[in-house]
Amino acid sequence: MDGRKEPVYGSGVTFGQHVVIEEDVVIGDNVTIGNFVVIKRGTRIGSGVQIGDLTVLGRVPFANKKMALKPPAELDPLNIGSSVKIGCSVVIYRGVTLGDDVLVGDMASIRERVSVGESSIIGRSVVVEPKTAIGSRVTVQTSSYITSDMIIEDQVFIGPCCSTSNDKYMGAGNYHHQGPTIKFQARIGNNATLLPGITIGEHAVVGAGAVVTKDVPPGMTYVGNPARPIK
Amino acid sequence: MDGRKEPVYGSGVTFGQHVVIEEDVVIGDNVTIGNFVVIKRGTRIGSGVQIGDLTVLGRVPFANKKMALKPPAELDPLNIGSSVKIGCSVVIYRGVTLGDDVLVGDMASIRERVSVGESSIIGRSVVVEPKTAIGSRVTVQTSSYITSDMIIEDQVFIGPCCSTSNDKYMGAGNYHHQGPTIKFQARIGNNATLLPGITIGEHAVVGAGAVVTKDVPPGMTYVGNPARPIK
Amino acid sequence: MDGRKEPVYGSGVTFGQHVVIEEDVVIGDNVTIGNFVVIKRGTRIGSGVQIGDLTVLGRVPFANKKMALKPPAELDPLNIGSSVKIGCSVVIYRGVTLGDDVLVGDMASIRERVSVGESSIIGRSVVVEPKTAIGSRVTVQTSSYITSDMIIEDQVFIGPCCSTSNDKYMGAGNYHHQGPTIKFQARIGNNATLLPGITIGEHAVVGAGAVVTKDVPPGMTYVGNPARPIK
Repeated sequence: MDGRKEPVYGSGVTFGQHVVIEEDVVIGDNVTIGNFVVIKRGTRIGSGVQIGDLTVLGRVPFANKKMALKPPAELDPLNIGSSVKIGCSVVIYRGVTLGDDVLVGDMASIRERVSVGESSIIGRSVVVEPKTAIGSRVTVQTSSYITSDMIIEDQVFIGPCCSTSNDKYMGAGNYHHQGPTIKFQARIGNNATLLPGITIGEHAVVGAGAVVTKDVPPGMTYVGNPARPIK
Repeated sequence: MDGRKEPVYGSGVTFGQHVVIEEDVVIGDNVTIGNFVVIKRGTRIGSGVQIGDLTVLGRVPFANKKMALKPPAELDPLNIGSSVKIGCSVVIYRGVTLGDDVLVGDMASIRERVSVGESSIIGRSVVVEPKTAIGSRVTVQTSSYITSDMIIEDQVFIGPCCSTSNDKYMGAGNYHHQGPTIKFQARIGNNATLLPGITIGEHAVVGAGAVVTKDVPPGMTYVGNPARPIK
Repeated sequence: MDGRKEPVYGSGVTFGQHVVIEEDVVIGDNVTIGNFVVIKRGTRIGSGVQIGDLTVLGRVPFANKKMALKPPAELDPLNIGSSVKIGCSVVIYRGVTLGDDVLVGDMASIRERVSVGESSIIGRSVVVEPKTAIGSRVTVQTSSYITSDMIIEDQVFIGPCCSTSNDKYMGAGNYHHQGPTIKFQARIGNNATLLPGITIGEHAVVGAGAVVTKDVPPGMTYVGNPARPIK
């Protein structure tokens, strides 16, 4: 008895070739797992989940000397709801919770301490940093970058290639990192740039390519660099 | 007899370790296949093709409840021309056609119903969405994002990190999705943003970082946000 | 005797499952290697290095007819310093040197003839093109694009999603390719665009979303499109 727990599998689980499953993993009924998948220690996977080829689930963070990072020991296992669909070449960390029916596109990556609400879409090649809360029925389109310490409320739409930041002093100050807050049903155009700590109000719209340096009030549309309201 | 067709291999095919090849795949002469490669059902690969490690060819699309998507049954197999070079960690979907001598860089992904003409370059980490037609001798540089329902004519040059979109109402309307059209030999600078439905004329130039909200006439150069002609 | 050299392993090396190691590889003490990793011919790995799952080290470049590329024969092996940490789904080419304590995030890729100084961070999904020199204690944040023929001095900070370019004529001229030079301790905001050949001076700051078309003098802050000095 060494305390190791064998993985637990539901019924109707299908495995691709060369799948690596670590200890204490729990996999629900009718889960489909691709080829060359790695499922790390403790990961919980709901029923009906689909996992593409070459994907890593439950990765533990690392750091070099230049980075401050809490020890991974306190991270909860990765928890994946029912009917979630995960693409190929995805990396999802320990300490993440994905609600039911979430879709994670190919090559997306999601760091620790992130929650994603039910039926949200994390597009292909999207990168989500730690400690960010994403609501339900949110769309984050392809290649957008979601910084850490961000709040994205329900039904927000983020177009492709958007960029966000959380550090006013770009690594040079002691600024408390704070990403943008995007409120209910706000919409962000492709390749928009959002600065640290700003709030995009409910139902507000940010135009494609806009550089948003201040709060956008609810229902308003901002465009340009720097972004200003449309008359 | 269950109707399954065994893969067919030409002469001089070399395989890396741990390659997964599904039924009904056809591989031409002198093809080189890397390690941990997945070649899905029905994929056709021409002679002299090189395939990097950890690449998936012929993937079938998926969707969650929030997305409308045609059933994959009607998609043709992935068809790869002669002498095509495909990098590592690439994902290419069923329903794609790659012309002879196309190069697809590492970590690029190409969705279904896309055609790429001969000798074109799809750079590293480029993402191409469904139903887009890319001509011959086109260059799409690293990390650019090619939306769906786009037309890119022959010899177009798209610099790195460009962003395109196809949905004027950002998920909120019934707008018919239409990506930009980029005409013969037009050139797009790095990190430019192209809005839905616009046309970039023949030999036109879009400057780096420009946000293009309207058509650019043939031969003109546009820069800025919003983009305006250079005098 | 065919001249092949067997790999050489230090003490305390741990291997994931399904690791492919080619000839003439040298691996130091206490190296940790993930699952489905490919280590190509000749790669040198220092002691205490961590390598994530699904990563390729020492890849040889390829090209199609449209691209000019020197033959790979003259590239030195990939050389990885001590205590380097490399994420999952990373691709690093032959002809790269990584200093001690460098961190390379998941899904990053680094082309040939690149050097990275000690303790620098190459963030997740960052792409580095050939022939670029990156100093020590540099941070390149997530999804930024570092073009070829660039010089990044020590302690530079590059925010997420930045874009750089090196070709004034976008594939149409005989311009000598030259990427930007970023001097000591300069800081670049997220989604900034840097044009070919410009210099960002020591301690200078480029605002988020700025499009930098000219040199930025030392200590100055530039914002906007085109970027201008802040009063």
